[in-house]
Amino acid sequence: MTLPMTVPEPGLPTRVRIHEVGARDGLQNENATVPTDVKAEFVRRLADAGLTTIEATSFVHPKWVPQLADAEELFPRVSHLPVDLPVLVPNERGLDRALALGARRVAVFASATESFAKANLNRTVDDALAMFEPVVARAKAEGVQVRGYLSMCFGDPWEGPVPVPQVVKVCHALLDMGCDELSLGDTIGVATPGHVRALLTELDVPVEKLAVHFHDTYGQALANTYAALQHGVTTVDASAGGLGGCPYAKSATGNLATEDLVWMLHGLGIDTGVDLGRLVATSEWMAGRLGRPSPSRTVRALSHKE
Amino acid sequence: MTLPMTVPEPGLPTRVRIHEVGARDGLQNENATVPTDVKAEFVRRLADAGLTTIEATSFVHPKWVPQLADAEELFPRVSHLPVDLPVLVPNERGLDRALALGARRVAVFASATESFAKANLNRTVDDALAMFEPVVARAKAEGVQVRGYLSMCFGDPWEGPVPVPQVVKVCHALLDMGCDELSLGDTIGVATPGHVRALLTELDVPVEKLAVHFHDTYGQALANTYAALQHGVTTVDASAGGLGGCPYAKSATGNLATEDLVWMLHGLGIDTGVDLGRLVATSEWMAGRLGRPSPSRTVRALSHKE
Repeated sequence: MTLPMTVPEPGLPTRVRIHEVGARDGLQNENATVPTDVKAEFVRRLADAGLTTIEATSFVHPKWVPQLADAEELFPRVSHLPVDLPVLVPNERGLDRALALGARRVAVFASATESFAKANLNRTVDDALAMFEPVVARAKAEGVQVRGYLSMCFGDPWEGPVPVPQVVKVCHALLDMGCDELSLGDTIGVATPGHVRALLTELDVPVEKLAVHFHDTYGQALANTYAALQHGVTTVDASAGGLGGCPYAKSATGNLATEDLVWMLHGLGIDTGVDLGRLVATSEWMAGRLGRPSPSRTVRALSHKE
Repeated sequence: MTLPMTVPEPGLPTRVRIHEVGARDGLQNENATVPTDVKAEFVRRLADAGLTTIEATSFVHPKWVPQLADAEELFPRVSHLPVDLPVLVPNERGLDRALALGARRVAVFASATESFAKANLNRTVDDALAMFEPVVARAKAEGVQVRGYLSMCFGDPWEGPVPVPQVVKVCHALLDMGCDELSLGDTIGVATPGHVRALLTELDVPVEKLAVHFHDTYGQALANTYAALQHGVTTVDASAGGLGGCPYAKSATGNLATEDLVWMLHGLGIDTGVDLGRLVATSEWMAGRLGRPSPSRTVRALSHKE
């Protein structure tokens, strides 16, 4: 199989942790409901491909995300794997369910804009933050790591461009309540590299606490990731095979594909621990289960060549 | 229509010239032969969308590229447009045909690797350069501008990674024989940003003489372009709607889509003169003529939203 050539770039991180979101963010946005068996196999294969942080599922009410209604069945089937398995918890009830199963990493999902907070959480930004506060406090008291997702950090489908100071404010609110890590999301994929750089610079938070989460709606995800790497960011969210997206982003393309990311990182000489061939095989296998080809350029190129 | 937000990045060029290759490099690699009427309309629409350099066709023998066998019919139908219309000339015979029609810009197509020179030109690299020498000399004597395409500047499907010094050597041979501009091609789309930076640094040629030509086979084209912009490059090749590719690159994806490029450039506050809406409409129209959707993420996102 063709693998990227390695030509390191001075000043970039030497290692990046990929936060794999395909099993949660990916499958949550697929129309098909995937059987629990297939999900467990998917997570196992992702771990086998060398991914070390695999977001497994969401403890949101099944009414809102029926695709992940099997969280209680799925989690115990993968929790023995020697990887980190964060799960999304929307509220205290979700946290209860996750803790009962022994989850050691959870994530909450906030919004930088009022419009998306209203659409996604039916709350104001501040009310959503107030809802997360006891969730984060209890998780921390239990010694559980907490990630804060922040969506609409660049543009919003209703509000247009999102002012950087507005994003910075919500970021600090999440950190102040105890989040260990922030994932800065370009939920509708409109950002460009200068905007990424501007937000990271203005944010002034240690890069160890930051992750970036780009969508490829306009093809910008990898260029934006490269800008974030140049800023020193070492945690990057991606979705195997480019699974999923955002239901509010009216486009067929969603998350940055993990394979396209790995191609760039390995080309830059940045260690990820991922075996690209195994990962591509996993995404091809999952594409077969979903009955549609992967939107990842790298998956298509390497599948085609085999 | 959604347009990118503008957040400039200090140190980047303020203006980029897009060398639009869809009508030549794009259509040459499509299976369908497009009627001359449609090609003329395509070029007219591209000019109307604000592109100022539109590679129109190729004066290669119709036996090799039957898709562009109508070069003599097409060129006079677009030559009145107030834009630069370079044409590809493979040899002296091609140059004769182009000059007879009043072409003022031509391009030759060299290879950085022996394997591709053999496959594409049935010559060694040096023999191909010797073949181009009188072509370039005569063009220059006629006051015609000459672009030198150099393919396989990063990886080669037969040889693997291409050493930077080997590429640099052929670049200087093309400049020494009188080429006004070099287009550095990642013909199989394998490059990553550190490699781009390494080649540009090692090359040590004024950026005014350089263009970059990336393929999106592994999704890397825009990140690579961003690296080239940071190096100061101000001419970028792209193909409207992502038309075409390389017949030797076994993949469905080809050239960087002009729309994805424009999204990034305008987001970075870099002027291109292009009206993105008109360009997207042109690519949608052409996709209809070809009977298949555009592979450009931006075209898909914006078409979907209208």
